[in-house]
Amino acid sequence: MRRIEIPRGFRDFPPETMKARLNVIEKVRKVFERSGFPPMDTPSLEYWETLAGKYGEEAETKLIWRFKDPLSNRDFALRYDLTVPLARYIALHPEIYLPFKRHQISLVWRHEEPQRGRYREFIQADIDTVGSTYIEADAEIINTISMALEELGLKDYIVKINHRGLLRDVIEKRFGILSNNILRTIDKLDKIGEDGVKQELKKLGLNEEQIQTISSLFIRVKLDDTASLFDIIGREYREKYVSIFNELFSLLYYKNKAVFDFSLVRGLDYYTGIIFEIVLTEGSPGSVAGGGRYDNLIGMLKGEPLPATGGSLGIERVIDVMVERGLIKLEPITFGAFVVVLDNEAFPLAWEYVMKLRERGITAEIDLMRRSPEKQRKRLNTLNYTYAIYIGKKELETKKVTLYNRLKGMRLEIELNESLKYLEEELRR
Amino acid sequence: MRRIEIPRGFRDFPPETMKARLNVIEKVRKVFERSGFPPMDTPSLEYWETLAGKYGEEAETKLIWRFKDPLSNRDFALRYDLTVPLARYIALHPEIYLPFKRHQISLVWRHEEPQRGRYREFIQADIDTVGSTYIEADAEIINTISMALEELGLKDYIVKINHRGLLRDVIEKRFGILSNNILRTIDKLDKIGEDGVKQELKKLGLNEEQIQTISSLFIRVKLDDTASLFDIIGREYREKYVSIFNELFSLLYYKNKAVFDFSLVRGLDYYTGIIFEIVLTEGSPGSVAGGGRYDNLIGMLKGEPLPATGGSLGIERVIDVMVERGLIKLEPITFGAFVVVLDNEAFPLAWEYVMKLRERGITAEIDLMRRSPEKQRKRLNTLNYTYAIYIGKKELETKKVTLYNRLKGMRLEIELNESLKYLEEELRR
Repeated sequence: MRRIEIPRGFRDFPPETMKARLNVIEKVRKVFERSGFPPMDTPSLEYWETLAGKYGEEAETKLIWRFKDPLSNRDFALRYDLTVPLARYIALHPEIYLPFKRHQISLVWRHEEPQRGRYREFIQADIDTVGSTYIEADAEIINTISMALEELGLKDYIVKINHRGLLRDVIEKRFGILSNNILRTIDKLDKIGEDGVKQELKKLGLNEEQIQTISSLFIRVKLDDTASLFDIIGREYREKYVSIFNELFSLLYYKNKAVFDFSLVRGLDYYTGIIFEIVLTEGSPGSVAGGGRYDNLIGMLKGEPLPATGGSLGIERVIDVMVERGLIKLEPITFGAFVVVLDNEAFPLAWEYVMKLRERGITAEIDLMRRSPEKQRKRLNTLNYTYAIYIGKKELETKKVTLYNRLKGMRLEIELNESLKYLEEELRR
Repeated sequence: MRRIEIPRGFRDFPPETMKARLNVIEKVRKVFERSGFPPMDTPSLEYWETLAGKYGEEAETKLIWRFKDPLSNRDFALRYDLTVPLARYIALHPEIYLPFKRHQISLVWRHEEPQRGRYREFIQADIDTVGSTYIEADAEIINTISMALEELGLKDYIVKINHRGLLRDVIEKRFGILSNNILRTIDKLDKIGEDGVKQELKKLGLNEEQIQTISSLFIRVKLDDTASLFDIIGREYREKYVSIFNELFSLLYYKNKAVFDFSLVRGLDYYTGIIFEIVLTEGSPGSVAGGGRYDNLIGMLKGEPLPATGGSLGIERVIDVMVERGLIKLEPITFGAFVVVLDNEAFPLAWEYVMKLRERGITAEIDLMRRSPEKQRKRLNTLNYTYAIYIGKKELETKKVTLYNRLKGMRLEIELNESLKYLEEELRR
């Protein structure tokens, strides 16, 4: 027999973990819905042509799970993000009302080298607004993701903001250099440090003054305080971008979280305007969300341009941090009621009793292993339950049952049918 | 530009549809959890070796989405059902407490020829109990799935029950013929009819008497009334199987739904004991659930045997039927509050007001297109909202807002901050 394995970089989610995941997803969904982003879903697979040319070279050659389906002889790819599938959906539905807002919480697949906190299959939670060119749409994305973090209790975040147009203007118009490689280098600041970035920029042909200009911008300032930076950035861009940043600032609901960060690039090729990234600052810091405006992507699929903006909350990182901080507990499954069968002849009564509890909305469990009352009690001691209910010969005759409330340490003898009503009121969820 | 398509047999779920899907999934999850089956998940991909040899030849050669990953040069398969991944999980976790019960509601992929109601990517909702050989475990699976159908309002179902051991005993021991092809033929009864089955059985080498025996069993009898059938089936099997069916009957909670059906085979190779299928009887009938005992599957992966039983509810079919019957409605997204901006200078106030509503748990929306008040009102008329709130110059000065309750046709002028509290009480969900 071949050795059985779980695929490398993939994970099982046993019940304790899965409960926590579902709870977080549910909370995030509610915040998104309240902000007018109802749920949507798209297929896990797309034709390769749909994804090709959207994410940049590294993603295309190394990170996308791409394969030829031998049964149809077509090239498929597993969903790499939720944005391109949305663009494909929009392209196929010209009848759609604009602005189109939706959220999508779905799996994506990336062929990353697995490491702590990085998986080959993970959940993203995205919101996007299609059809509005206005800064309100960008601000609403940031406000909504911020509100989700606030409600999850992750309040130590900052929102780093930049503008792809500004980055391109400075590098291409002012320096006269094609910006793609430069942007990719700046994007590595967190990984290789300032000196590393400077060395790579030199290799890319930037002169000392240009490198000095860029590295003197590696400071964070409040978003409504960017005007002074344009002495460095280039005063010719001040009017355009300062007003954009100020306008965005005025629309942000959690204003003290927002900073301008010139080193923020965002990896993906498709961004065109405001870009943002949200990082946690306490404990092990790191990015939990990001996004931006992508006014050309839908046009690549639809044939005519349609503006759009969106953001993605990294549910996996959020869950990891919440577990680390004790905000969610991975605890054994809880039962409202556990029925202990004391005599074989009482089993049918106990069995029906459990079904009646479940019918009344109570999580109820009974032994499926024909264990002795002692062994059932032993198992009970390892479980997280509220009521233990004992049913045996005596209960069969008297039509009464004994309830034991573990949390209150209270014992109660009660008529069988009455006990159902009693437990329903006590336990229904 | 290449023509953009959604992959054949795959579906997008726009918000109206997706809301309904999530509601059904949530209801089913609750019933499963109450019966002591907490949620779990496994990867979408498994190594090919894990799935190979588990489902039968047709699945392996035609239906499983199998591919070679060019980046790792390994063979992968998209999850074909939720049972084999569970078995793989159990095989890798010998420390697990038995019985292990879990539910899983996840996507599976099958390379079927797409047709109405049949897709290449769809959701299954499974419950399984690993570690119990007892009929209680089988009965609990059937009871739990039945309870889910009851709560969804699909009460016109019957549960067809058979036993793989009985099928094999009759065909292999009594007729002296290998059973695989015979079972596959009997399984086609619904598709090709009784005459079709008879013809195919003849081709497989069964004699007239054997064919007569099998076809005279193509009747449904109540599950506690199978004894008389054993004059046909073979009296030597009566003792063993009648007691199994009677015992199962005694444990079923919705007894009047259960019938014995000798023609029930269930396609998959891995079943070994009790098998069942649940079909709806009104309108367009069809299978909505099925399952059975598979005591050898985990052993194939683990190296040592471990009994298990489970069942699967076809969420897609359930949703389709519920929509058909008007049990769920695909309706436009509803808003608690829609804020109409009457004057540009009031926009900042309106914007903040919307955020405050959302913070209070209210689904609130505001125009992102800088539309005129007339156009905002026009859009409002197409929406499913409860309160419209008008904010303009006057409201900015008086710090009062006008609320209009569409459902009650009621208008109310109210102080700004008071209005937040008022709406919170009226709308919070």
